[in-house]
Formats: sequence, C-alpha cells, structure tokens
Amino acid sequence: MKDLNELQSIISKAVAETKYPSQPPDLYEPISYILSLGGKRMRPALLLMACDLFGGDVNKAIKAALAIEVFHNFTLMHDDIMDRAPLRRGKITVHEKWDQNVAILSGDAMMVEANKLMLQVDDAILRPVMDIFNETASGVCEGQQYDMSFESRDRVSADEYINMIRLKTSVLLGGALKIGALIGGATEKDASLLYTFGEQLGVAFQLQDDILDIYGDPEKFGKQVGGDILANKKTFLLIRAQELADDITATELQNWLDTVDPDPQQKVAAVTAIYNKLNIRQLATETIQIYAGRSFATLDELDLPDSHKQYLRAFADSLLVREY
Amino acid sequence: MKDLNELQSIISKAVAETKYPSQPPDLYEPISYILSLGGKRMRPALLLMACDLFGGDVNKAIKAALAIEVFHNFTLMHDDIMDRAPLRRGKITVHEKWDQNVAILSGDAMMVEANKLMLQVDDAILRPVMDIFNETASGVCEGQQYDMSFESRDRVSADEYINMIRLKTSVLLGGALKIGALIGGATEKDASLLYTFGEQLGVAFQLQDDILDIYGDPEKFGKQVGGDILANKKTFLLIRAQELADDITATELQNWLDTVDPDPQQKVAAVTAIYNKLNIRQLATETIQIYAGRSFATLDELDLPDSHKQYLRAFADSLLVREY
Repeated sequence: MKDLNELQSIISKAVAETKYPSQPPDLYEPISYILSLGGKRMRPALLLMACDLFGGDVNKAIKAALAIEVFHNFTLMHDDIMDRAPLRRGKITVHEKWDQNVAILSGDAMMVEANKLMLQVDDAILRPVMDIFNETASGVCEGQQYDMSFESRDRVSADEYINMIRLKTSVLLGGALKIGALIGGATEKDASLLYTFGEQLGVAFQLQDDILDIYGDPEKFGKQVGGDILANKKTFLLIRAQELADDITATELQNWLDTVDPDPQQKVAAVTAIYNKLNIRQLATETIQIYAGRSFATLDELDLPDSHKQYLRAFADSLLVREY
Repeated sequence: MKDLNELQSIISKAVAETKYPSQPPDLYEPISYILSLGGKRMRPALLLMACDLFGGDVNKAIKAALAIEVFHNFTLMHDDIMDRAPLRRGKITVHEKWDQNVAILSGDAMMVEANKLMLQVDDAILRPVMDIFNETASGVCEGQQYDMSFESRDRVSADEYINMIRLKTSVLLGGALKIGALIGGATEKDASLLYTFGEQLGVAFQLQDDILDIYGDPEKFGKQVGGDILANKKTFLLIRAQELADDITATELQNWLDTVDPDPQQKVAAVTAIYNKLNIRQLATETIQIYAGRSFATLDELDLPDSHKQYLRAFADSLLVREY
C-alpha cells in the first residue's frame, strides 16, 4: 500500500502539469489559478488509495483523480461567488480577481473539463464510473442548496443538517473512493462498501469539525474558538441545543443569536455555557461514534486482506482522533 | 422522413413529461421553470432529425435530444445572470424570480442532469457521443467568453467575430446533428459531415440575423429595426464597417458610438447610411453565401438518398430564405 502523502504528491504534480487551452484566457486561466492555490488534494488521493487497495495501477487512475479535484474546485469557485468570499486558501477568489461573470463561466467550463478527465477511464467501467460521478455531482449541488436555504430558516432539524453535510461533502469522498475502487478492479459490492466507508466517515468528520469550533485547542486547530457561534452558524451543536433547551434557556440562546454586535468573548462564553448545561458536546460525540461505527463496520464486509483493512482503519483514525 | 414540426412536438411533450426530484425545491424547480418557457426546441429536434435521416428510431434518441435541450437551457440560465437579463421569452428570468445564487446552482445541477440524460445512449456509441457532447459544451463556454470580452474591446476582427458566433451557437447545432446521426447508425464520416452541415449553416444563420436587424421587415422579423445599432453591438456589419471606413467615415461612426443618449432614429439612420455607403449589406450577404455554400457542399459527400438530401436542403433554405 502506498502512503497517503505519496498519493497526495502524485496528485499535486499531476495538477501542476495539467495544461488547459490558452484561449480565451478569461475562461481557462481561472481554472489553472484556483487549482494552483493548493489544498490537501485529499479527495483525489482517496481515489488513488482505493485503486491501490484493490491492486490497481494508480498511474491508470490519475486522470479520474484529477477529474475529482477539478470538479471539487469547480464547486469551490461557484460557492465562493454565492458566499461572496473574498479569499480562498488565503488568496483572492476568482470572482474578485477577475469578476463574477468570469467565475460563473469559468466554473462551467471547469465542470466540462472534469467530465472530459473522468471519461478517460476504460470502456469496461465507463458507464458505472460516469453514473457515480453524476450522482455525486447532483448530491453536492443538493447539499449546497440545503446549506444556503438553512441560513434563512429559523429551525433546522438534526436529521436535515446531517443530510446536508452528507450531500455537501461526504458523497464526494464516497464517490472518489468508489470510482477508484472500480478502476482498481474491485467488485461492485466492494466498491459500494468503500463508498459507504467514505460517506459515513465524512459525516463523522464534519460533525467533529462542529465540536472543534468550540472545544478544539486553538493552537492545534488553527482557528478562532467559537467562530461558528459568532457567525450564528447552524451547526449540529446549535441545532441540538435548540431542540433540547427548556423555554428559558431557549429564549436566552435566541437572544444571543438576535443580539446585534455582541461582545465576541461574552457571546462565545454564554453560548458555550448553554451547550455545556445541555450536555451537547457529549451528545455530538455520541452521534460521531454512530457514523464512525457505520464507517468501520464496512471494513468487516470488505473483501480485502487484513493489512489493507488496517490501512483504512488507520486512515479513519487519523481523521477522527484530532485532539480536543 | 418525419416532419420537423412533428419532431419539435415530440420534444415539447418529452420536456413536459420529464420530472426532476422534488427536493430541494430551489434547486430543481428552476429547471422545470426555464424548460417550461417554451422555445422552438430546434436543437433537440435537429438531433431527432439526424437520427431519422439515417433510419434510426427517433424514440431511442429522445433522451439524448432532451440532454441537448437541458444543456442549452442551462447555458441560458447562466447567460441571463451574466447579461443581467430581466426577461427570457417574455417571462421573468430565474435569477430575478428566485435569486442569483439559485440561478448559479440550479444551472450547475442542470448541467449534471444533461449529462445523465446523454449517458443513456447505447454502450456502443457512449464514448464518442460523450466526447462530442463535452467538446460542444467547451465550445459554447468559449463562445460566451469571447462574446463577453468583445464588449469591452475597442476593435474585434471579422474572423474573431465569426469564430465567436460559431462557438457560441453553431457548434451546438453541429453537435446535436452529429449525436443524432450516431444514434441513427451513421458512420463516423457521415456524422462528421452532418456536424459541418450544421456548424456552417449556423454561422450563415447568425450573420443573417445581423443583417435583419437593420434590413429586415420589422413586421415579419418582429424586432425593433436597428436594435443592435442602438446597443452599440459589435455585429458583423459594424465590424466590417470599422475595417473598411476611411478616416472621416470612421470618425463619424465612432462619434455615433460614443454619443450618450442619442436620438434613436437619427442614430439608426446615420449608421445605416454609413453601412450603405460602404456596401456592408452586400459584403455580409457574400459572407453568408460562403458559409451557406460550405454547408450545402457537405450534402454532396453525405451517403444518403437524394430525397433525404433534399430534405436537408429544404430545411437549410427555410432558415436562410428569410425575407429581407
């Protein structure tokens, strides 16, 4: 089994070497630009990893892995317009560096490029791979739409929230793994199990992110503590707190959400105190365990040598055992 | 051979019967909405026509034809954002009826739906069909980017302009015909000839549109005479006039382009007079003849019965013999 870092390096090299047409520049330069901003290349590396797991040649999976990375960055380019984000990975976003129209159209062209890359898989698996890719793409669009619509809603249920994060981020992890497995020669059954492994692990990882916003060590985590609270973000913690709070606590929580220009430290402390009183961290951790458990359970069913299952288990552990 | 009107009706019925997921509504309702606004369904009808020409079963080509129509409407949804258009076919545009973010994301989802529809062709032609579809999609994006960038440029050459309209509108006509031909069982050679037939005819048709803006009978044409002139649109006529004008005429033309709030009738009359002096209408008509000639020339090479070639010739004539 190849090391995940090695697979990430293969992708970074392949991304840097990929050339797009030179004309028209405002269509293709933003594609090279956003792809040059870096990132961990986790999704395409997972595709290569899945191929490797089933004994496939990772070199034959690089175009498909690039397709996943190009698709992911296309969604980022359009999401940044929708979120009016000025920065992406610390660099100016495409719609700010060029303009919004360029970001819309260049994103569209990027999706076409992703399709062209994915179409380079062997004939024998062309249809199933393209079906997975399109189902994944629909899921990501649906997740982004739910995410946007939740912002203007008063209440979102925990189930709705988990379904949103599953669609917005986890199906692409699952899709990348499933496609990589098929390229590596996995059976449909094993490829689907690996999809579930990634999908459920992705949900656990996203829920963990919600906990880390408040309970994470800022030095290790590298983000401002309570950023989600200050942004009134409907995280799993807030949603569960709203569901479980008695009337007085619910009013107190709502007052903090409604306060214009609160003292940041006071607001984070007060909302965290509410979460603590309601035992939200424990509840969230239990939910993470459920999804992590479903992810690990697929390992028992996968037709792979124990050493390979151990590799997957170690990978999952590395994602989930972030100290907090 | 089936009548083109009949093919258009088949498409309209299929469009109306196509159902999208109900959730999330803001992602899928705009797709049904923009497709319900009508239009002539010319592109998908051409796909069915091409299938029929080679003896194929048009019922087997309906999903691919829908893919072309869904793709076309995806480009309209995003173009309307970029053009800040309030209306599409007399109805409120998606970004106005919902909001811009909905139009961006729903358009993205629409492109995925188009891919899913196109993927339903038989295995034997799956790869060539998807290759044509993606090449076509890239071309349409490139054409739209050129069109936008021309707006802010002082000068555009006639060659650049023709390449832009070829990409923005003609390659989709060609692509629809080629895919339909392959579904109908045509050889790669015949399918490519039909692509060229559509592509060159499309350029001729678009150039004709530029002439009709000024020289068309407003009652038959149904548009305001000189609308392109009032919008300072870089049409083939304006571009050729800029290329051919002597210094004095060029200055006069530029003054009209630079005048803020001109009297509309005066501006149209003055610019038309410049075109007349430079014999632009005749030059444009000659260019149309070149492209129409290239389109008709493919008929000689196509391996089809004379009656079928006559059908294509009559179709082309119906597009080009618009009275003006």
